[in-house]
Amino acid sequence: MTEFNQPISGNDLARFSGPNTFMRLPQADSLEGLDVAILGVPMDIGTSWRSGTRFGPKEIRAESAMIRPYNMATGAAPFDSLQMADIGDLAINTFSLSDSLRIIQESYAAILDTGVIPVAMGGDHSITLPILRAIAQKHGPVALVHVDAHADVNDEMFGERETHGTVFRRAYEEGLLVADKVYQIGIRGSGYAATDFTEAQGWGFQQFPAWELYHRSLSGMGGEIRRDIGSRPVYVTYDIDSLDPAFAPGTGTPEIGGLTTPQAMELIRELKGLNIVGCDLVEVSPPYDTSGNTALTAANLLYELLCVLPGVTAR
Amino acid sequence: MTEFNQPISGNDLARFSGPNTFMRLPQADSLEGLDVAILGVPMDIGTSWRSGTRFGPKEIRAESAMIRPYNMATGAAPFDSLQMADIGDLAINTFSLSDSLRIIQESYAAILDTGVIPVAMGGDHSITLPILRAIAQKHGPVALVHVDAHADVNDEMFGERETHGTVFRRAYEEGLLVADKVYQIGIRGSGYAATDFTEAQGWGFQQFPAWELYHRSLSGMGGEIRRDIGSRPVYVTYDIDSLDPAFAPGTGTPEIGGLTTPQAMELIRELKGLNIVGCDLVEVSPPYDTSGNTALTAANLLYELLCVLPGVTAR
Amino acid sequence: MTEFNQPISGNDLARFSGPNTFMRLPQADSLEGLDVAILGVPMDIGTSWRSGTRFGPKEIRAESAMIRPYNMATGAAPFDSLQMADIGDLAINTFSLSDSLRIIQESYAAILDTGVIPVAMGGDHSITLPILRAIAQKHGPVALVHVDAHADVNDEMFGERETHGTVFRRAYEEGLLVADKVYQIGIRGSGYAATDFTEAQGWGFQQFPAWELYHRSLSGMGGEIRRDIGSRPVYVTYDIDSLDPAFAPGTGTPEIGGLTTPQAMELIRELKGLNIVGCDLVEVSPPYDTSGNTALTAANLLYELLCVLPGVTAR
Amino acid sequence: MTEFNQPISGNDLARFSGPNTFMRLPQADSLEGLDVAILGVPMDIGTSWRSGTRFGPKEIRAESAMIRPYNMATGAAPFDSLQMADIGDLAINTFSLSDSLRIIQESYAAILDTGVIPVAMGGDHSITLPILRAIAQKHGPVALVHVDAHADVNDEMFGERETHGTVFRRAYEEGLLVADKVYQIGIRGSGYAATDFTEAQGWGFQQFPAWELYHRSLSGMGGEIRRDIGSRPVYVTYDIDSLDPAFAPGTGTPEIGGLTTPQAMELIRELKGLNIVGCDLVEVSPPYDTSGNTALTAANLLYELLCVLPGVTAR
Amino acid sequence: MTEFNQPISGNDLARFSGPNTFMRLPQADSLEGLDVAILGVPMDIGTSWRSGTRFGPKEIRAESAMIRPYNMATGAAPFDSLQMADIGDLAINTFSLSDSLRIIQESYAAILDTGVIPVAMGGDHSITLPILRAIAQKHGPVALVHVDAHADVNDEMFGERETHGTVFRRAYEEGLLVADKVYQIGIRGSGYAATDFTEAQGWGFQQFPAWELYHRSLSGMGGEIRRDIGSRPVYVTYDIDSLDPAFAPGTGTPEIGGLTTPQAMELIRELKGLNIVGCDLVEVSPPYDTSGNTALTAANLLYELLCVLPGVTAR
Amino acid sequence: MTEFNQPISGNDLARFSGPNTFMRLPQADSLEGLDVAILGVPMDIGTSWRSGTRFGPKEIRAESAMIRPYNMATGAAPFDSLQMADIGDLAINTFSLSDSLRIIQESYAAILDTGVIPVAMGGDHSITLPILRAIAQKHGPVALVHVDAHADVNDEMFGERETHGTVFRRAYEEGLLVADKVYQIGIRGSGYAATDFTEAQGWGFQQFPAWELYHRSLSGMGGEIRRDIGSRPVYVTYDIDSLDPAFAPGTGTPEIGGLTTPQAMELIRELKGLNIVGCDLVEVSPPYDTSGNTALTAANLLYELLCVLPGVTAR
Ligand SMILES: [Mn+2]
Ligand SMILES: [Mn+2]
Ligand SMILES: [Mn+2]
Ligand SMILES: [Mn+2]
Ligand SMILES: [Mn+2]
Ligand SMILES: [Mn+2]
Ligand SMILES: [Mn+2]
Ligand SMILES: [Mn+2]
Ligand SMILES: [Mn+2]
Ligand SMILES: [Mn+2]
Ligand SMILES: [Mn+2]
Ligand SMILES: [Mn+2]
Repeated sequence: MTEFNQPISGNDLARFSGPNTFMRLPQADSLEGLDVAILGVPMDIGTSWRSGTRFGPKEIRAESAMIRPYNMATGAAPFDSLQMADIGDLAINTFSLSDSLRIIQESYAAILDTGVIPVAMGGDHSITLPILRAIAQKHGPVALVHVDAHADVNDEMFGERETHGTVFRRAYEEGLLVADKVYQIGIRGSGYAATDFTEAQGWGFQQFPAWELYHRSLSGMGGEIRRDIGSRPVYVTYDIDSLDPAFAPGTGTPEIGGLTTPQAMELIRELKGLNIVGCDLVEVSPPYDTSGNTALTAANLLYELLCVLPGVTAR
Repeated sequence: MTEFNQPISGNDLARFSGPNTFMRLPQADSLEGLDVAILGVPMDIGTSWRSGTRFGPKEIRAESAMIRPYNMATGAAPFDSLQMADIGDLAINTFSLSDSLRIIQESYAAILDTGVIPVAMGGDHSITLPILRAIAQKHGPVALVHVDAHADVNDEMFGERETHGTVFRRAYEEGLLVADKVYQIGIRGSGYAATDFTEAQGWGFQQFPAWELYHRSLSGMGGEIRRDIGSRPVYVTYDIDSLDPAFAPGTGTPEIGGLTTPQAMELIRELKGLNIVGCDLVEVSPPYDTSGNTALTAANLLYELLCVLPGVTAR
Repeated sequence: MTEFNQPISGNDLARFSGPNTFMRLPQADSLEGLDVAILGVPMDIGTSWRSGTRFGPKEIRAESAMIRPYNMATGAAPFDSLQMADIGDLAINTFSLSDSLRIIQESYAAILDTGVIPVAMGGDHSITLPILRAIAQKHGPVALVHVDAHADVNDEMFGERETHGTVFRRAYEEGLLVADKVYQIGIRGSGYAATDFTEAQGWGFQQFPAWELYHRSLSGMGGEIRRDIGSRPVYVTYDIDSLDPAFAPGTGTPEIGGLTTPQAMELIRELKGLNIVGCDLVEVSPPYDTSGNTALTAANLLYELLCVLPGVTAR
Repeated sequence: MTEFNQPISGNDLARFSGPNTFMRLPQADSLEGLDVAILGVPMDIGTSWRSGTRFGPKEIRAESAMIRPYNMATGAAPFDSLQMADIGDLAINTFSLSDSLRIIQESYAAILDTGVIPVAMGGDHSITLPILRAIAQKHGPVALVHVDAHADVNDEMFGERETHGTVFRRAYEEGLLVADKVYQIGIRGSGYAATDFTEAQGWGFQQFPAWELYHRSLSGMGGEIRRDIGSRPVYVTYDIDSLDPAFAPGTGTPEIGGLTTPQAMELIRELKGLNIVGCDLVEVSPPYDTSGNTALTAANLLYELLCVLPGVTAR
Repeated sequence: MTEFNQPISGNDLARFSGPNTFMRLPQADSLEGLDVAILGVPMDIGTSWRSGTRFGPKEIRAESAMIRPYNMATGAAPFDSLQMADIGDLAINTFSLSDSLRIIQESYAAILDTGVIPVAMGGDHSITLPILRAIAQKHGPVALVHVDAHADVNDEMFGERETHGTVFRRAYEEGLLVADKVYQIGIRGSGYAATDFTEAQGWGFQQFPAWELYHRSLSGMGGEIRRDIGSRPVYVTYDIDSLDPAFAPGTGTPEIGGLTTPQAMELIRELKGLNIVGCDLVEVSPPYDTSGNTALTAANLLYELLCVLPGVTAR
Repeated sequence: MTEFNQPISGNDLARFSGPNTFMRLPQADSLEGLDVAILGVPMDIGTSWRSGTRFGPKEIRAESAMIRPYNMATGAAPFDSLQMADIGDLAINTFSLSDSLRIIQESYAAILDTGVIPVAMGGDHSITLPILRAIAQKHGPVALVHVDAHADVNDEMFGERETHGTVFRRAYEEGLLVADKVYQIGIRGSGYAATDFTEAQGWGFQQFPAWELYHRSLSGMGGEIRRDIGSRPVYVTYDIDSLDPAFAPGTGTPEIGGLTTPQAMELIRELKGLNIVGCDLVEVSPPYDTSGNTALTAANLLYELLCVLPGVTAR
């Protein structure tokens, strides 16, 4: 028996039962004593096509009830050596994108102050901008592993500078990132010009378009990224639309020809050893997730991310 | 500000956010100080056609997040004068119907011991037999308001004597009910012989077939039932399949030609003043509830039941 | 134990099990000895908006597995005194509407030759024209109870004279009907001119628009129709879109403001005593029936039709 | 043949074909010569529970393809005497509620300037506030027929004063309405206090809660409202959630025990003769409309509204 | 700014808004000045299993709204150098397959006369036979790139010689194809005999069964086909069921073990340089496309086809 | 014309028509003369997360109607040389898991007595324990090809020793298997400790975790397994959740990162030549199979299994 919080076992309470926390971990009302805080940012007003990501945290938690604590593939046992809990949702203002971004940034500043590692369930990708602002305030500019179908480096959308499609241009401009340690993986689809991608290469961003990754393992690429980052603080942001819509239909701006879940797991598992200071998984839109598979996939990828956090032991 | 538990307000935390408790009430770990305990009994192994009711409590709670504390139609304010909480789910054994029924009965005995009124979210209707056993042990034989498409008075099904279709024959045989104060409302459909219904009439059960209730208010009938019951202890069991499938598609054994939600609310609202010692709402099957409406309806009917519990004040 | 075919009982074989015949009746390979033949006409190439009715017979049969043999409301016991069986599907030509109509007419002629009463599961409404041709050949012009959102009396559609929207003009023109004993019930919606309905009134058709039927029982109207028809042969054609889309979403040309299932049952039950020489239930489109309720409703209405066939006894 | 725009006939082009305009009317690029402009306001960022209404106009148009030009029940022929067209969607800013409201108001001011009657497809109900601002600027304070499950008279929601739940308090405060000629029909559900409804009664609003309307025709009530309004300008705002979720599941904040579509049509048909200066139909959320029925219902109710516009003749 | 038609930008009008044309290109009423005409052929009466493809064009257009004009992977900018427009749907006769095929052939003859390249959205695969007839009349026998789960070389189906399963036998017999320049890619599944495939090999058809293509890039194969075709006119017909049902569930006759979307894009991208004289994408069945992904995939593959048309430049 | 039972041809009866037997084979009432008996075991009460597999046999049969008799990839013609029939469903007791397991074992003993090879459609995986008990009684301990996301070697679940998660520990303990000829293929996901898998390795089980199988053909592995088994009797149990949820969403305990259908077919096709004494395909849960693809996949994999049964010839 460990001293750390554990998910409720399926032998104690049927899996379709119990609290709707991530993996049925305890819900914590305070950050006191936590190493890792799992939280929801239920928001969809930063999206440009289909909405619905406001229900992302709820459904990811629901599907996470089936996950058990030990990673059969890697031996990671995330609940053996870190104190983790679900701290609930941020109280965003669903009628105002700008106000919500402010709330997120302030909430993250308070969380990071305690030294806890925040693991967010989105919400649309616009949540990552205020998160990175708080992260940079705490850690300085960070490396970024950004898995996504989109580069999210638009300048503005319908005149707005802070949306789910402008996050990483803003983050670059504001100096929140170590630009040549930014890795954009799985980008693809259509745009307006080659510069939609290449301009960010000019800033130093390293891009791995989806079409270069087909039919093969991403373990090698993951290892190279890990070695390239070294010991600097790194943030991981996982947009579920990086996956092919066959694997993740329930998202707002799906693009065909994406990654597979084996590739996603190969990539994340190679990040073990990095100094991850926070991560998020965004853009799960339950109303478009008719099978529940997208939320299930998100829950599992979040679990894989927990398994590579600093301090997690294997057995 | 009241001293009693209140649902989280939508102005404090967006409705798509927060704990998955009934109406976002606090989750209680102990019965201490409670007047009413809302609980889930997530079970579907007593069903004969479609399964899926094991996810009933989870989805009813999810849809209940939209309900506010004050009943605009009746003025009832259930959280003004009673201490209510969600106490989570019973730890049933999903592989054994008989063992689950034993667990339910024992759990209910413990709950009733404290004087708390239990309000259950099913689960299939087989849960009501062990509930009534515990209720009768506490209160003696009780009156029963039973709203259902089915009389649930089979003798056995595939050789089994305890299933969702045999509940009220067993309850009658075991003396758990005041037989002439049993009201079966909304029964209809097909059977094997007239005695499928009439035998129970011979025991004293009062039956209100659906086809006698079409196109009219149920307020009158509800009032008559209330006056007929008087002050004796009464249990209310609401099978969601009493409603027409247009109003409640997500259930295991739907029968066309059922009640409407206006009728259901008219009926329940007339029960105010009765000495209700417990109630349940059963047979919501989320995998067949493609619109979510059935769970939404169930949540609202449970709310209406809370509004007529003894001690609830109006304002 | 009766000498007549009986549905498999749910106590002998779980309802989700067994053959996919109507009500799990035996499948008959010959008409020999049958009083009533239940058959499928799986076709959708006569439809003008959504297709999918080709799967109607399959899904109606699937949902019919829950129906038991005795009618609790009316006491009818259709399997006590008539030999009924499911004779499978007609081998229509799914690539040619005209060829399919020919096949249906010839098949019906053969069935009617034996004296068997045919009960068809559609298929789109265009199947009723060749059926009526065969019926009239056998019985002469018949009375017609036609429940539908549409009058189906167009002259042509895209130049075609035989589609699901022209059936009853053709039947009238060809003298298949006793025109002043045709009852069109539930018609409504939009059209091109008042004559879309009134022209048929000029032929003698009696029309009961949906908007005159709201909020009340159809028992009275059903009784009047029964008395008006008297002892002459009558065919009953039930288009599921007569029902409101809330009750029957899975159909090809839904019209809001329709009948309810209580009204449908009230109407059909009043037809007991008529000399029904055949009937059909058409326009169930499973791909649009996300809850399965439309097929369930169709199965039940077909069952109600079986209950009012000549010779069916009550007990 | 008329000189006015006509929907494409199903005999010229199959109904599943052709432009996605309302009823397959021509799309107009200018307001020149129009009497009525049908337009979309695709927005969902003013919603508090489920989103998705941004796709409302698209789906309402898709389902409207089945409607023919003549109203069989009332004889109205809306395209005989008024020039109507679909003018497309307003170019709202999906990232900013306040900016979108500004765009709507300015767009409406321009439309109203031309004397055209605007008929809007929402979008969430927050669109009606800027519409009423423009309407009042043009016509002065107007009477209001407001059909809805909710009174939408909150003061603020999460600190915001302009959301889909605060519309009519703002409109009242700003003097946009003739307060004692405001009719709120179908309101119901739960709230925080009796004053949630009664405060607006104090302003003069006339309220018709759903529970007073069950089981009966709304023609009488509709006629009374028409006579009470007389000849003054009136705006009609129809929130699809006024309907019961059985009839309109695809909406963001469904409340059980609502109106039926027969009632909705009875009500709207009684408004013929009023000086309607504009109308809207809001809150259709396609991702939650699994059967398509909600958009179908919305399209039909919009058609019924076209049928009662001033100047529409019957034949 | 270009002189050519451009899709509406998401920064000018929200993507969930605007006309339902392919990629929100202008709708053209005349072929005058066009290089490429995108059109719908909404038909499903040539299908043998599930229907629904009549709604294919509508849904493909709806999902195409998210595609932007520049191909990030290949640099193709199809709207830079060719005038493209959506010319709407052919007015097929939904009640007659043979009449519809005639209409298609005549319509195509008229289109081809103008020198425009036609790009069709099906509809079931039977549309390709009249298209090829018109194509051969214009261009003589053509090479054919045929991507499909099925060889579609049946002789007849239920006695009919023109259905979605007989297209390429008819085309071969009628001399519409250069037989040894026909490439059937992705064929698989079950049949009646080896000759179902091998007979067509005897005609010269080159077949690439799916099981020889697993786990690898199709770029090499695509390049070989391109070189083998050389400069002769070629028609490309893409049956969406060539893809695995995981990638394209919404189709009428799905076969497991199919191609992936990466493979589909690799293949199409290699066709750049060919003298493509027309192409189509068929068999998208929206009622079976619960996630919308199949229409999304179809829209993207059509876009990829536009990107390899003769005269399209890259930048 | 062959002497053996053949599926009904799509040219004789439209595929959406006819009996709901596997591949529309004849239904046999006796085992007399059969070589292979295909049967359903419709059960879901052994599941720990989502239920619904009770409808598995019904839906697998429904989707199997599209499969034709000849295997285009392998040349196998299973109906050329073996007499096969669908013998319907076992009459399990849906209210008792233990009683159902007893019924299955007894039924299998009777089937095996006749020398017929049984091919089962589940149902949840708990059915395989009584099947193996009967198999071992007939054949002695057998080799086992077990394709699954889970090892199903738990000791107990909620105190129960016979559930869908404990099958192969029980089978091992009871000596039903040749332990070092057990192949567990596709296992993955999360657990409680490394021993969840490794303990079974200690018994001799050979495990092929999914993560070792990505991006490559399984033909090689299949061939090795075939050679390792040699001529001893072998049972094949195929849990549909071995596949990735993208390929098989409709199952009760999905795990991401699974096999693809090409891999599944490559594996099964390599089993040709083995002495297969029975096989099953389990865990298809139709209520979660929104596209029908999972049942379609199951039907095809069962067909592939028929193709490798001993005695099946190729042509
Ligand atoms: Mn992103
Ligand atoms: Mn993205
Ligand atoms: Mn019940
Ligand atoms: Mn019931
Ligand atoms: Mn009809
Ligand atoms: Mn109709
Ligand atoms: Mn409203
Ligand atoms: Mn409302
Ligand atoms: Mn094809
Ligand atoms: Mn094909
Ligand atoms: Mn298993
Ligand atoms: Mn498994």
